[in-house]
Amino acid sequence: MRLLLAAALAAMTLPAAAQTIAIREIGSFHVGGRIATIEGLPTREITFTAGAPPFRINPNGDFQVEQMYVQYVKLAEPRARVPLLMWHGGGLTGVTWETTPDGRPGWQMFFLRQGHDVYVGDAMERGRSGWARFPEIFAGEPVFRTLGEGWGLFRIGPADGWNTEPAQRRAFADSKFPLAAWNQFGKQSVPRWVTTDAQIQRAYDALVQQACPCVIMMHSQGGNFAFTAALNAPDKVRAIIAIEPSGAPDPARAEATRVKGIPHLVVWGDYIEGNPFWARLRTNVERWQGAIREAGGVADTLDLPARGIRGNSHMLMMDTNSDQVAALVQEWMAAKGLMR
Amino acid sequence: MRLLLAAALAAMTLPAAAQTIAIREIGSFHVGGRIATIEGLPTREITFTAGAPPFRINPNGDFQVEQMYVQYVKLAEPRARVPLLMWHGGGLTGVTWETTPDGRPGWQMFFLRQGHDVYVGDAMERGRSGWARFPEIFAGEPVFRTLGEGWGLFRIGPADGWNTEPAQRRAFADSKFPLAAWNQFGKQSVPRWVTTDAQIQRAYDALVQQACPCVIMMHSQGGNFAFTAALNAPDKVRAIIAIEPSGAPDPARAEATRVKGIPHLVVWGDYIEGNPFWARLRTNVERWQGAIREAGGVADTLDLPARGIRGNSHMLMMDTNSDQVAALVQEWMAAKGLMR
Repeated sequence: MRLLLAAALAAMTLPAAAQTIAIREIGSFHVGGRIATIEGLPTREITFTAGAPPFRINPNGDFQVEQMYVQYVKLAEPRARVPLLMWHGGGLTGVTWETTPDGRPGWQMFFLRQGHDVYVGDAMERGRSGWARFPEIFAGEPVFRTLGEGWGLFRIGPADGWNTEPAQRRAFADSKFPLAAWNQFGKQSVPRWVTTDAQIQRAYDALVQQACPCVIMMHSQGGNFAFTAALNAPDKVRAIIAIEPSGAPDPARAEATRVKGIPHLVVWGDYIEGNPFWARLRTNVERWQGAIREAGGVADTLDLPARGIRGNSHMLMMDTNSDQVAALVQEWMAAKGLMR
Repeated sequence: MRLLLAAALAAMTLPAAAQTIAIREIGSFHVGGRIATIEGLPTREITFTAGAPPFRINPNGDFQVEQMYVQYVKLAEPRARVPLLMWHGGGLTGVTWETTPDGRPGWQMFFLRQGHDVYVGDAMERGRSGWARFPEIFAGEPVFRTLGEGWGLFRIGPADGWNTEPAQRRAFADSKFPLAAWNQFGKQSVPRWVTTDAQIQRAYDALVQQACPCVIMMHSQGGNFAFTAALNAPDKVRAIIAIEPSGAPDPARAEATRVKGIPHLVVWGDYIEGNPFWARLRTNVERWQGAIREAGGVADTLDLPARGIRGNSHMLMMDTNSDQVAALVQEWMAAKGLMR
């Protein structure tokens, strides 16, 4: 009997067992969207698979469009009070949260281990959300990110530090981005439209109605969508965690009082001073934070360089110190009473 | 002491605990692909985010293209000898395996519970794999599936049974597809090219080199890619499970002896007799199965109607009896020695 108990207790404290997480369910769904009708296009004949008979395609008809894909991982015993929704930035997908380009575990896994049910989605039009015919349904045309564009934009190094040849690339001296994995990071890029903000917002708002109450963590372009989702459904959002948001509501047009009950945290990496593009984006966000505080709410800032943590890029959830930054975010969530 | 042990044993046998699965890691990666260069296109000015300064876009440059996205869920203690790779069909993504359109758990969850490490990917060009500029990188143009196209093609009902109005749709009398969720299923559709088979195959072959030894389960258009992947790396593939494959290698061009050591299972749903399109596709597959058997290999067939299981559509992993069909597949895997 004692031996059995000893064995049972030993099994409970094995390091390997301690690293596992107990999952109740992994699944996904699509939310939002509408049916759009296309008329007047000519029919065509197509062979789908080698060996298959040709198939006459009529491109006209009804199409399911503008929905959004969301995958969830539900824990057996979540320690967080509400699920954590993770919204990615422009030209990317939910993969942002799943992995780092050098193959370390992503923030999805980090926050699962911390006890959060996690919902990782792809913005409307990106990744598994699918995309629609243009210009008939999406206005304009898609934009494709070059392998080098992000080098300056994501503050890996100076914009003129980019070079096709990896050995010739010049990064910031103390950059924490896993530089050797830059091309691998490029594989995460997906095309985007710049004309679909309204549809993206509608799909996110539909997700909030379906999956919340929740905490929303977002990155970059996801910022404005999440700030706005909180304005649109303040009763559904328990906190907003903005990782380098590229936009925020204009206090002259949006009522910050609506979100004064929702604690906000904004996280910034390094090299923003002296980068006019990012300095301007940050000013917009700080104006919104100021409005929230003026309304009596909480709008904190986690400025990593000010905390002595140097070298973080715009993709800080992929930087070599990604777990260190995540732990600071987790600490903030705990302090805000979001954990049981 | 006895009380403690009793409590420990009770915790081990709680129904809720029995339903959970112990996970070691969830993550993802992109595999394969190449860098393509585009030249000679004009520059354009674009505003990415409301409030952001306009940005001059040069669409020329180097692009990371033709990679494939794969997500994995690794169990703490897998009972299967090798991981299970799940490859979806045409016009869809890995979502095929994650859920059913009426919200029941998908086959990914079923096979995780059975003890398999599971890798669910998106074919090159679909979902989180991203897609590339056309016609410069992908030849031709994308094809979009109408909401009604799959009704006949996936054998939900007669092709002329489709109607925009849900109440007016005519399904086969004993169809097991969750009919009320048809429009929700439509949200899983993504555009596809019909000119990219070679690139899709290359990415799958790269995945096999990275993630195998493995068992490959595939659906529909994924069939030919998986049969071919086994031919290209017979030492890496332990079994092939083909769910309604839409294509197979031509025995006159491919050497079945190469895969005689790999047990194959082909699963068919209902309504194929009397459907000339599917009857012809099935004949191609049976010819390949015959060649494998002639070479001394195993190429089994699970014909659901012949087993007395009626009403399954082409999307049988989403049909209301999806768990019943999955259990038969699991039984076959166990019989083939693929479980510990």
